Amino acid sequence: MMHRYKITIEYFGTNFVGWQKQENGLSVQEVIEDAIFAFTKQKVIVYAAGRTDAGVHARGQVGHFDLDEHIGVVRLMRALNHFIRPSKVVIILCEEVSTEFHARFSAKKRYYEYIILNRKACSVIDENRVWHLHQNLDLDLMQEAAKFFIGQHDFSSFRAKECQARSPVKTLEELEILIAGPYIKFRLSAQSFLHHMVRNIVGTLSMVGEGKFVPEDIKHILAAKDRAAAGVTAPACGLYFMKVDY
Amino acid sequence: MMHRYKITIEYFGTNFVGWQKQENGLSVQEVIEDAIFAFTKQKVIVYAAGRTDAGVHARGQVGHFDLDEHIGVVRLMRALNHFIRPSKVVIILCEEVSTEFHARFSAKKRYYEYIILNRKACSVIDENRVWHLHQNLDLDLMQEAAKFFIGQHDFSSFRAKECQARSPVKTLEELEILIAGPYIKFRLSAQSFLHHMVRNIVGTLSMVGEGKFVPEDIKHILAAKDRAAAGVTAPACGLYFMKVDY
Repeated sequence: MMHRYKITIEYFGTNFVGWQKQENGLSVQEVIEDAIFAFTKQKVIVYAAGRTDAGVHARGQVGHFDLDEHIGVVRLMRALNHFIRPSKVVIILCEEVSTEFHARFSAKKRYYEYIILNRKACSVIDENRVWHLHQNLDLDLMQEAAKFFIGQHDFSSFRAKECQARSPVKTLEELEILIAGPYIKFRLSAQSFLHHMVRNIVGTLSMVGEGKFVPEDIKHILAAKDRAAAGVTAPACGLYFMKVDY
Repeated sequence: MMHRYKITIEYFGTNFVGWQKQENGLSVQEVIEDAIFAFTKQKVIVYAAGRTDAGVHARGQVGHFDLDEHIGVVRLMRALNHFIRPSKVVIILCEEVSTEFHARFSAKKRYYEYIILNRKACSVIDENRVWHLHQNLDLDLMQEAAKFFIGQHDFSSFRAKECQARSPVKTLEELEILIAGPYIKFRLSAQSFLHHMVRNIVGTLSMVGEGKFVPEDIKHILAAKDRAAAGVTAPACGLYFMKVDY
């Protein structure tokens, strides 16, 4: 009988080529599949809620895989973390789920967080964990600009060339900007996102903060449906895949 | 003419022997004094608001030092950070101050933060940045116990043997416990602290959370004026020196 396991995963993305297995380097998927093989001797595929890019971190990525035999979830989690070590990946929750559950296709809402450090000096504690911008950002303008992204839009201007989504129309449910000292945290949620969508939104908002765009420009950038109309892609190091609702 | 400079410093304490210069390893003080020498060819002493232990981090340590010549603070900060690299220390603010200012003796209030990660799995993103405790802590009991620490007490039970303070009597102005998912943040402030005082308070509170002490025990532990009456010393990795008021 087949048993399906749902795992919630944290990883520090800096030295990975991303979630997905690739020829040119180590992926999070490979690390976990190898650990499952080391423990169970079964070659499985781990499906994930979101295929994060190289350098992107996760505090709550979700994956699933199937095993022929039943293994208690406490034991399974402990064993996988043992075999994963010392890779910068850790299973933080392991649950047995119905075989109808699919980490990617059952997802109702995905949550991302992006962190900018806005001060003159870089950070040594948060190295590779934030995007450091030393020019002073106008937070009020960024807050104002953020509103234009909320709701259903054609996000073609914020979509990577390589994006494989069938439609560029997405509904951004939330884009909150929180300030904690020199740290600017962006919280975004939607059922799904286009490739690079969060990073392109944050990059463009940072340019609003620098005065290179005015908030109302966001309307026109969305209307242009052209990647060239929007701003830079914020680097991967500031991005965290936080949570998935099912 | 002598010029006094105040610097605000962030460091990732993991591979340092602590703030203070020592024979047996690299200190934050040495890294900064060496950078000042590399730039100015002056051998100076950098005095700090708090001499943090090995492994303790700082987001807002404050130091001061004197130079014979005047150097613009923007240029000075940039040069010091250049020479400090790649050590995990960074000057985040540099100001010229009156020669009456003293980083240690002028300090009116010091702020510390301690972070516990309370869940089964460790963290790969916050490795060496939190204290990982996998047994479930009762936060209500910890909150209740925290109140007994506030105010002026003889903190002998929370004082390291090596402590050089003249008096064990300190006034803890604030001890707040904040919850963010599995993260428990302790915020403490006082004009000054005894050696290991924050770590001994947090260690003891963690044992309240585990049910090894009841909240009212804190009263008796304080009254005992005996280090053996209190709980464990929480590890250095979860401790951050955050800020100093002058």
